[in-house]
Amino acid sequence: MGNTFGHLFRVTTWGESHGGGVGAVVDGCPPRLPLTEADIQPELDRRRPGQSNLVSPRKELDRVEILSGTFEGLTLGTPICLWVRNEDARPEAYAEMARKFRPSHADFTYQAKYGIRNWQGGGRSSARETVGRVAAGAIARKWLRWTYGVEIVAWVARVHRITSRVDPEQVTREAVDATPVRCPDPEAARHMIQLIEETRRAGDTVGGIVECYVRGVPPGWGEPVFDRLEADLAKAMLSLPASKGFEIGSGFACAEMTGREHNDPFRVRNGRVVTTTNHSGGVQGGISNGMPIRFRVAFKPVATIMQEQDTVDVDLQETTLHGRGRHDPCVLPRAVPIVEAMTALVLADHALRHRAQCG
Amino acid sequence: MGNTFGHLFRVTTWGESHGGGVGAVVDGCPPRLPLTEADIQPELDRRRPGQSNLVSPRKELDRVEILSGTFEGLTLGTPICLWVRNEDARPEAYAEMARKFRPSHADFTYQAKYGIRNWQGGGRSSARETVGRVAAGAIARKWLRWTYGVEIVAWVARVHRITSRVDPEQVTREAVDATPVRCPDPEAARHMIQLIEETRRAGDTVGGIVECYVRGVPPGWGEPVFDRLEADLAKAMLSLPASKGFEIGSGFACAEMTGREHNDPFRVRNGRVVTTTNHSGGVQGGISNGMPIRFRVAFKPVATIMQEQDTVDVDLQETTLHGRGRHDPCVLPRAVPIVEAMTALVLADHALRHRAQCG
Amino acid sequence: MGNTFGHLFRVTTWGESHGGGVGAVVDGCPPRLPLTEADIQPELDRRRPGQSNLVSPRKELDRVEILSGTFEGLTLGTPICLWVRNEDARPEAYAEMARKFRPSHADFTYQAKYGIRNWQGGGRSSARETVGRVAAGAIARKWLRWTYGVEIVAWVARVHRITSRVDPEQVTREAVDATPVRCPDPEAARHMIQLIEETRRAGDTVGGIVECYVRGVPPGWGEPVFDRLEADLAKAMLSLPASKGFEIGSGFACAEMTGREHNDPFRVRNGRVVTTTNHSGGVQGGISNGMPIRFRVAFKPVATIMQEQDTVDVDLQETTLHGRGRHDPCVLPRAVPIVEAMTALVLADHALRHRAQCG
Amino acid sequence: MGNTFGHLFRVTTWGESHGGGVGAVVDGCPPRLPLTEADIQPELDRRRPGQSNLVSPRKELDRVEILSGTFEGLTLGTPICLWVRNEDARPEAYAEMARKFRPSHADFTYQAKYGIRNWQGGGRSSARETVGRVAAGAIARKWLRWTYGVEIVAWVARVHRITSRVDPEQVTREAVDATPVRCPDPEAARHMIQLIEETRRAGDTVGGIVECYVRGVPPGWGEPVFDRLEADLAKAMLSLPASKGFEIGSGFACAEMTGREHNDPFRVRNGRVVTTTNHSGGVQGGISNGMPIRFRVAFKPVATIMQEQDTVDVDLQETTLHGRGRHDPCVLPRAVPIVEAMTALVLADHALRHRAQCG
Repeated sequence: MGNTFGHLFRVTTWGESHGGGVGAVVDGCPPRLPLTEADIQPELDRRRPGQSNLVSPRKELDRVEILSGTFEGLTLGTPICLWVRNEDARPEAYAEMARKFRPSHADFTYQAKYGIRNWQGGGRSSARETVGRVAAGAIARKWLRWTYGVEIVAWVARVHRITSRVDPEQVTREAVDATPVRCPDPEAARHMIQLIEETRRAGDTVGGIVECYVRGVPPGWGEPVFDRLEADLAKAMLSLPASKGFEIGSGFACAEMTGREHNDPFRVRNGRVVTTTNHSGGVQGGISNGMPIRFRVAFKPVATIMQEQDTVDVDLQETTLHGRGRHDPCVLPRAVPIVEAMTALVLADHALRHRAQCG
Repeated sequence: MGNTFGHLFRVTTWGESHGGGVGAVVDGCPPRLPLTEADIQPELDRRRPGQSNLVSPRKELDRVEILSGTFEGLTLGTPICLWVRNEDARPEAYAEMARKFRPSHADFTYQAKYGIRNWQGGGRSSARETVGRVAAGAIARKWLRWTYGVEIVAWVARVHRITSRVDPEQVTREAVDATPVRCPDPEAARHMIQLIEETRRAGDTVGGIVECYVRGVPPGWGEPVFDRLEADLAKAMLSLPASKGFEIGSGFACAEMTGREHNDPFRVRNGRVVTTTNHSGGVQGGISNGMPIRFRVAFKPVATIMQEQDTVDVDLQETTLHGRGRHDPCVLPRAVPIVEAMTALVLADHALRHRAQCG
Repeated sequence: MGNTFGHLFRVTTWGESHGGGVGAVVDGCPPRLPLTEADIQPELDRRRPGQSNLVSPRKELDRVEILSGTFEGLTLGTPICLWVRNEDARPEAYAEMARKFRPSHADFTYQAKYGIRNWQGGGRSSARETVGRVAAGAIARKWLRWTYGVEIVAWVARVHRITSRVDPEQVTREAVDATPVRCPDPEAARHMIQLIEETRRAGDTVGGIVECYVRGVPPGWGEPVFDRLEADLAKAMLSLPASKGFEIGSGFACAEMTGREHNDPFRVRNGRVVTTTNHSGGVQGGISNGMPIRFRVAFKPVATIMQEQDTVDVDLQETTLHGRGRHDPCVLPRAVPIVEAMTALVLADHALRHRAQCG
Repeated sequence: MGNTFGHLFRVTTWGESHGGGVGAVVDGCPPRLPLTEADIQPELDRRRPGQSNLVSPRKELDRVEILSGTFEGLTLGTPICLWVRNEDARPEAYAEMARKFRPSHADFTYQAKYGIRNWQGGGRSSARETVGRVAAGAIARKWLRWTYGVEIVAWVARVHRITSRVDPEQVTREAVDATPVRCPDPEAARHMIQLIEETRRAGDTVGGIVECYVRGVPPGWGEPVFDRLEADLAKAMLSLPASKGFEIGSGFACAEMTGREHNDPFRVRNGRVVTTTNHSGGVQGGISNGMPIRFRVAFKPVATIMQEQDTVDVDLQETTLHGRGRHDPCVLPRAVPIVEAMTALVLADHALRHRAQCG
C-alpha cells in the first residue's frame, strides 16, 4: 500500500532498483494534452545518475517508454503507463547487505515490516523509485503550464553551511541548470561544488536545502481542513527519500515573529488582490491566494558513506559495515527535479479538485 | 472535500464556528474498546478557550456528546459521531468581516474559492474546527495506549525567542500541564508566560514551536513511498491552522551535517535493535524503527491583532481593519493537544494498515 | 469502515436505530446551492414509518436538522452535517434478540465480525441507517436538478407475483405517490395493496422489484473500467438493506437475446445522437450516452415475520424465535425514495468527476 | 480515473487493445507469498482468444511478465507490476471505426466524454483490458487459497435459452474446463456449443449467464452499509464489459417469495453456525456468514455482429456499418475466468479490511 498519490490526478509508482524496471501509472490526466516521451525525458535526464561528476557515476540512461494512454500524440484520458528499464544493476555490489543493515537506510525497517526485502540496491526503498515520480510529474507539469500557465522552479538553496542568495522572482530554470549543483547563485554554486568534491574525497556525504517557487497558481486551489495545499505539499516532500523537514512561506522563522510583523497586508494591483509581503507563502487557510507559492525542503546527507560504521546483521549480531558502490556524495542536485515533480503532482491534483467542486 | 483524514482509522470533521456546532465522525475504530465521553472530555478541556488567562477568554465549555458507535460503554466498530454544540457565539463581533478580508486569515481565499463564506468567526476556517480533531484523536490515542502501550506527549518548545530545555525521555504530561503555557521547562515557562502577557497588552501576538515525542511505536508502522509515516505526520501537522513548518528527527539541522555525523548506528540492547543516536526521529525509509518518534511544528503568530492593518474589501477597495474580539495572543498552549490528537490519528491509521498487510 | 460513499460528492452516514440518532455528513457539495431543511424533509417523509397502513406503524417524525455547511440558505462548499434524532425507540421489544440471532438478519454476522453488537432494533444494521442516505440524497438530487435538469423517478414495479405496466417516459412522481404502495399502475397498485394487507394479517412478508428511470443525464458521465456508471449504481443498490439483485437496461433478459436483437442503433434527432432502442439502459462502456438510464432492483421479503422460526443463540444453542414488534410487511413502498437517493448520490459524484477531468 | 479497484488489496489496470500492451499494478498484496508467472499464466490462458473454436481466433499468447514486487520467488509487499504485450494487433481492421460509432459499443460515449478515442480495436474499452484484471486476480486468488483455503469456481450457467443443471457443491474447475463452453453440465454444454456455432455462422452473437460459487469464506468479511460484500461484488461484476445484471443468493427470484419461504434458519453443525437454506447467498447485512457465496452475472450478446446495422458517424451523419474482424460469437466462456478474478479481488480486499479492524 501507499504507492499511490493524488485524489484526481493520481500516480501509482512501482519497481525496485534491481528488477524489471521502475515506472508509474498516471490516472486522471485530462484528455487531448499533447504528450510524447520527449516531454518526459528531459526531466529524467536531470534526475539520472552520471550527469555530472557531482553525482553517482552509475550509467543509467533512464529512457522512458509510454506504454499506454496516448494516441497520435495526445492523451486519451485513460491511464498512462510509463516504464524505465533497469540497466546498470550490479547486485553483487550489495552482497554484504543481504545480511547487514546499512545505518540510516531502510534495510532494517523493511525487514521488520515485511519479513523480506530485496537487498539489492535497496530494492523498493532505493531513490531509484523516484524515476516514476519524475516521469509522472513531467506530465502534470506540462498540463499545468498548458492549461494555467503555472511555472515551477526549484533550486539548491543550501549545501552544508553554504547558503545562496537568490531572487526568487528572477530565477529561471536555465540559471538553475547552469551549474551541476543546480544553485543559481554562481558564487555559492562554486563553493558548493568545491565542498561536495572534498566531501566525496573524504568518503563522506553532506546535506542541504532545496527551495521551490511556483508562479501562476490562481486563487482558490486547495481544500480546507485536512487536504490543505500546504498539507499535501508537506506530505509530498516528506515522502521523498532523505527529506527531514518542510516549511512554507515564513516557515520556522515564523516562531520568532509577531503578528504585526507576520501578517501580509492585502492591496489591489491591476484589479487583482495581492499581498505586499508573502509570509503566507502563497497559501492562506489551506487555499492558494494567487501569490507565488514558496517552500523549502531539508535533505539529510546521503546515508551511504565510504567509511566503516557500527551496525547489526539479520541475526541481531553487532558488526561493522564499510560502504562501497557508486553513490552520491550529496543528493541535492538530483533532488531538484524530484521536488519539482512532486509539486506538479500536488498542484495538478488540486487544480482538478477545484474544478470539480467550484468549476 | 478534504474533510476526511486517514485510510483505515478515518475521521471526518464538520461544523463552523457559528452554527449548530462542530463535530467529527470516526469510522474504522476497532470494536470493544471501552469508550465514554469521559475519555474525550479531558482533551477538549485542554484545547478549549478560557482555560487560563494566556488564551482567548471565550466561554465555551465544549461538552462532547457521543451520538453513535458505542453500546454499553464499548465501541461497536461502527461510526462514532461526536458533537460539540456552539455556545458563546457572537456573530455581531464579526459584522465588519462580512465585507473586509482579515489579513493572513482565510477570508479572502474562501471567498475566492467558493464565492461565499460564513464570515462569522471565520466559519469553517476557524480554529474551532479542531474540536472535532481533538475529540477524534482522543479515541485514537486511547486505542493506541490500550492496544500497544503507545504514549504521545507534546509541549511548547519555543515561544518567540524563548527556547526551552527539555529531556524528552523524561517529560510527562503532568509536567507539560503544570503551567498554562504547557512548557515543561519551568524557567522557560515563566519567561514565556511573561512574554505572552506583554504581547497581549501590546495588542500583538506571537509564534512558536511545539515539539512532540512518541514512545512505544513498534518497528514496522508506515508505508513506503507516498504514505511514509513522516509524510503523513507532515500532512497532519501542516493541515493545522497557523502551522508553517514540520521537521522530524534532525530536521532542518540535517542540512549542516555530514553522513558520518548524521547516520544512526545500529546496536542490540535487550535483544532489540536500537540506534545509539536518533537523528532519524524514529522513522527510516518511511517506516518506524522502534525508536521514539520525535518531530517539531512551527506555528505562526495569531493573525488577529488588536491594531489597525491595511486590507481590501469584497469590492476590491483598499481599506483598513482593526482587530477586535476575544482572541489568543499565542496559539501554542492550545496547539499542544491538537498536535497530539493528529499524531494519534496518524499512528492509529498506520497501525491498522500494518495489521492489514503484514499482521 | 465502509460508511462513506462517493469520490467527490461524498456521504458518510452514522448512527444506530437506538441511540442518539442517525445522520450523514455530505462533503463535496458545490457551494451556493440554495438549501434548507425544507428541501430534505419531503424525502424523509416518504421514507419514514407510519406514513400509511402498508408500512411499520412506528411513530418517527424523522425531523432533519442541518448542523453545518449552509449560511443564509446557501451551501458553503463545506461539510453538511444532517441529523435526525431517534424518538420512538423501544429497546425492550428487542430483549430476546440480545441472545438469539434473528434468521436472515445481520445479528449473527455482526456478532461474528465485531464480537459485539447493539441488539436493540438491529443497531447499525437497521434500515433506519438509510435515513442518512435519503437526507444526503435529497441534496444530491436538488443539485442535479438545479445544475443539469436531471430528473429521477422510481416506483414499485412488482410485489410478489403482481407486476405493473408503466410507461417510463410518462411516469411522474405524483403518479408514484398517488397510492401508498408507490406503484403508478392503479390497477396493479390495488392488487398490491390487497396482497400486502393479507400478507401482514398472515404474519408474513413479501418481496418485490423497484424500477428507476433517470432523464436528463448528458452523454459522458461515468468512468471507464472499474468505476463505470452502472458499476457504481449496482454497488449503491446492493448496499441497500434487503436488496438481492440489480439489472440495467435489458438486464437478465439480455441472456436470451442475440446481438442483432440487443444492439441499439444510433440515429440523429434534433442534432443529438440517440438510440432507437435502449437495451443499454443509457450507459455504454460505463459512460452515459444521453438516453434515459433505466434499472431495476430486487428486494427480498422483510426478514422479521410474526411466526416462529428455527434459530440459534449466542451460546450456539439451537432454539426458536417468534418475531414481534412493529415491522413492515413489505419494504418496497419505502424503498422507492431510498433507491432514488442512492441514484442521486451516484450521479452527482459522477457529474463532479466528469467536470474534473473533462470539464 | 476509475482504473483502480480495492481499498487495501488494490489493482490499477492500464493499457489499450492497440499500443504497448496491457497490464496491472497490484498494491497491497501481503509479503512472502510464493509467486511466479506460472501462478498467473494459466488464468490468462483461460481468458485469451484462440483457445477454442468457440471464441475469437485472434492469436494472442498473452504472456505475462512480472516487472516488480517479487524477489527470489516471493512477494515483497511492494507493488507488483504485471505486463502483457500486445501482439496480434491489426489496426487496419478498424479503419472504418475511426469515423463510425459501432452500435452498443463505447465508441460514441468515449468520444462524447473525452473528445478523443483510440478507435483501434476499441482502445481502452476493449475487453482486452480484462487481461490486467485476470492477472491481478490470479494473485488475489492464490493468496486467498494459501491463507484461508478459499476456493472460487464459476461456470456458464446459461447461453440464450439453454440452461444447465449443476450441483454447486460438487462442481469442480476440472468439470468446468472439460468443455470449451465452460459449462459443467455435459448435456447442456453440447447444446450450447452447437448453438454458439450456429450463431457464429449466422453472423450473430448470443448472451448468457455466469454463475459463481465460493467456498471457505469465514464469517465476518464485508463492511456494513456502503461497502457490503455483495455491494462490492455487484460493482465488480457490473464493471465487466457486457455485463447487464447481478444477483446474489435468491436474486430476482426473491421478489416472488414470502419471508417465511426466504428466511434461512440457523442451525449448529459440528460446532459451527450454518443455515439450512442459503437464499442469502452467504452474505447477511453485508457480511459473510460462513455459508458458500453464490451469485450470477448476466452478459449481453457481443455487440460486434457480422451484419449491417444503422449508426451515425463522428459528423453526426446517419450511415450503416457492417461488422468485420475476429470476434467472439459468445463472450461467456471467456467471461468465466474474469468473473473469478474479480471475485478474488473483492474477497482479498475484504479479508484485509477485516484483518485491519477486527483482526
